[in-house]
Amino acid sequence: MHRDDPQGPQTAASGRLIKAPENFIDPAGVRTVFRQAKEGRRDFIRQAFAGAVAATGAGAAMAQAGVPAEGDPAILKLPAHTTGLGQPVVTDGYGKPSKYEANVQRRQSPGLTQTAQASVSFAPLQSLFGIVTPSGLHFERHHQGWWDIDPSQHRLMVNASDAKLMKTPKVFTMDEIMRLPSVSRFHFIECGANTAVEWGNVAVPTVQYTHGMISCSEFTGVPLITLLELAGADLKKGRFVLAEGADGSSMTRTIPMSLITSGEVLVAYGQNGEMLRPENGYPLRLVVPGVQGVSWVKYLRRIEVGDQPWAAKDEAIHYIDLMPDGTHRQYTSLQECKSVVTTPSGGQVLLDKGFHNISGLAWSGRGKVRRVDVSVDGGRNWRQARLETPVLSKALTRFNIDWVWDGKPAIVQSRATDDTGYVQPTYRQLRGVRGTRSIYHNNAIQSWLVTESGEVKNVQLS
Amino acid sequence: MHRDDPQGPQTAASGRLIKAPENFIDPAGVRTVFRQAKEGRRDFIRQAFAGAVAATGAGAAMAQAGVPAEGDPAILKLPAHTTGLGQPVVTDGYGKPSKYEANVQRRQSPGLTQTAQASVSFAPLQSLFGIVTPSGLHFERHHQGWWDIDPSQHRLMVNASDAKLMKTPKVFTMDEIMRLPSVSRFHFIECGANTAVEWGNVAVPTVQYTHGMISCSEFTGVPLITLLELAGADLKKGRFVLAEGADGSSMTRTIPMSLITSGEVLVAYGQNGEMLRPENGYPLRLVVPGVQGVSWVKYLRRIEVGDQPWAAKDEAIHYIDLMPDGTHRQYTSLQECKSVVTTPSGGQVLLDKGFHNISGLAWSGRGKVRRVDVSVDGGRNWRQARLETPVLSKALTRFNIDWVWDGKPAIVQSRATDDTGYVQPTYRQLRGVRGTRSIYHNNAIQSWLVTESGEVKNVQLS
Repeated sequence: MHRDDPQGPQTAASGRLIKAPENFIDPAGVRTVFRQAKEGRRDFIRQAFAGAVAATGAGAAMAQAGVPAEGDPAILKLPAHTTGLGQPVVTDGYGKPSKYEANVQRRQSPGLTQTAQASVSFAPLQSLFGIVTPSGLHFERHHQGWWDIDPSQHRLMVNASDAKLMKTPKVFTMDEIMRLPSVSRFHFIECGANTAVEWGNVAVPTVQYTHGMISCSEFTGVPLITLLELAGADLKKGRFVLAEGADGSSMTRTIPMSLITSGEVLVAYGQNGEMLRPENGYPLRLVVPGVQGVSWVKYLRRIEVGDQPWAAKDEAIHYIDLMPDGTHRQYTSLQECKSVVTTPSGGQVLLDKGFHNISGLAWSGRGKVRRVDVSVDGGRNWRQARLETPVLSKALTRFNIDWVWDGKPAIVQSRATDDTGYVQPTYRQLRGVRGTRSIYHNNAIQSWLVTESGEVKNVQLS
Repeated sequence: MHRDDPQGPQTAASGRLIKAPENFIDPAGVRTVFRQAKEGRRDFIRQAFAGAVAATGAGAAMAQAGVPAEGDPAILKLPAHTTGLGQPVVTDGYGKPSKYEANVQRRQSPGLTQTAQASVSFAPLQSLFGIVTPSGLHFERHHQGWWDIDPSQHRLMVNASDAKLMKTPKVFTMDEIMRLPSVSRFHFIECGANTAVEWGNVAVPTVQYTHGMISCSEFTGVPLITLLELAGADLKKGRFVLAEGADGSSMTRTIPMSLITSGEVLVAYGQNGEMLRPENGYPLRLVVPGVQGVSWVKYLRRIEVGDQPWAAKDEAIHYIDLMPDGTHRQYTSLQECKSVVTTPSGGQVLLDKGFHNISGLAWSGRGKVRRVDVSVDGGRNWRQARLETPVLSKALTRFNIDWVWDGKPAIVQSRATDDTGYVQPTYRQLRGVRGTRSIYHNNAIQSWLVTESGEVKNVQLS
């Protein structure tokens, strides 16, 4: 029903625009088949079996339904995949999506960043399903580009800013880390700057650009607390931890020890069943559930225990919120409850009236999503959406709800509530607290305008 | 700690064999760093900052820890990824795993099948984590090869063997299916012939070949019951459904209506967040949770409602179990509770004694896994493993358990129990009921022998 975003050519399935059939059986042909079946025209079965197509599955299928007379072009033009021998099993390569899905890609926002090494590629949320983000489409945010680091050379140092805070500082090989007790958990990662340009009502065209700096994966690794215990860290006096990456961006972030002692923070090597991808920090990254992505340090090479925050450059200068009174909020790393409708969303087109499944994503950095409500009239009336299971803490939750479009203009919104009772705010509510000069942590309700022509546009209600 | 299977070159991280460091800071250097830090040799900090490496993150890291004297080769050979500019964000291609993971691949068993179009490629379970199988490594089983079918041409016909069983037979485009109410669920798919050669104690070397015809994904699609209701099917008299694929294998399978009315059976288009892969039935496949893979018909083009099973060739001749009394079990499609340790497993090598995380997978076609027990002495003693969450119905469950290897021979086993109370059998128990002439539905306890040299071998206890 929907057209993919305007940047690329239209695709067939996940892009949601389906053309009329060309060489398979057409709707008129199907009606003929069923009419003849009802009339008991079983003689067509024999004719069909006698024909060139009789030995194929399609021949048998149509014979069972009562097949039109031989010579009918509807059945003589059987597709190659029904009559031929397919491709062999894949044993010498990593599998890829269909060629018809080539338009489903991460995209960089032209003009948003100066260089492609310190930039963003957004995940194509409008074409995704469920809660798992395919690793090949996981959003990227690099500060100095990505690397494919040799894991046999990689080390993780665990030390302390003061020798009193740790008994036995350690350096781990990948091998040593992968022998340790392992856990696997689903979590979302969202860049603190996701939905940033909407603060200024810039209204970028698609959900890929408004919300595409979020992804969700099953991560596997070792709880950071295990490594700290092995190193004999003082978990009381050591109230903070610094995480440092091995790449040239010198990314360092302060993590409160309270998150770590809960067991939630992982030193992860696995993502969606396999090793992390290079763009996502292979061979090691920190996983800090519920916290903005910049703290999930990639290419993790060092953990330092300390007794106060480090005020690193990416904490003191970047990733801060300018408040209406002119002060800065620092260390505001938690991603509050948020949601967005991904279908229908900006750039798509509803080709006709009638039933449409509305689908979207909800999440909260504080726990589980309790409920999602959906409005199709700009927030006047709300209906509760179905949440797909499992609903997991600090992970994406997929919601769906039925909608019959009457062909008139509609404004589609979603509003999530998490299990703390927090309700996703409107722009008016959010700006009332935060003003308009923020870059980070925009979790306001997103609005999509469906016009009478079926085109879906990004609009912002005050 | 472990070597990948013998077929390929050794890899670094997921293959589990880690070499000594070459050009990053070595263990001796680290000890020097910490000794000097304890001795308060803070003068080294200044020297380090004066050096060529001072501006890098590694320089700062070592400076904080107390850095060895300038000229020490341990710090002057900083890796390129710490000093250089990395790769740009990926915006014109689908992401791929690290080059260091090239050995993690699906593999075909030489000699098991005659042609690569009617064959199997096994998933590399020994290198996987968690419960999600990466779509690029999902096992394959084709009967006539795979196809990349144009979704704009694809149709799903819903009809009945007798006109009385359905009011309005229908033909759906992909577009029409994707507008309908959508659900997303995690499920395993296991070929009925998984672990087949172990019936004969052939003892193939690795878990990839013993158990690699299983994978687990998040599937998204429309409940089949929704399509049957739209077509006005008689859900009482229509006690069975035939599912038919569009490829040349003419795959047809009977599905009991009782599975469909439960809402569990899906007509799926999504897998792990994106469209199905061509090898897995793009653009449509049936998802029949808990049931053997052959019933998950790929390239699904037709659903027929009937009042009796069809006894299709893949039901009457293949996928049947030859019992000890000479009779055949038919329609035995449910996959019983089963588990396997994936690390350590055949072909891997424990390079030293001490702590090793034992990890594996458990599943049941009847519901959730309730518990998994692990033995390291061939079944004399068992300890309960930790189950990673979420534990989902008819999905893989990841288990982990601590083990300290004393360097003596050990036999590692896992035994799963599902929420019906069913306990995975030993080979003795399974053969007592099923004899030795089966191909399908082998769910016996798998044994891995760890030898004194650390090599892990496939053995079978009676």
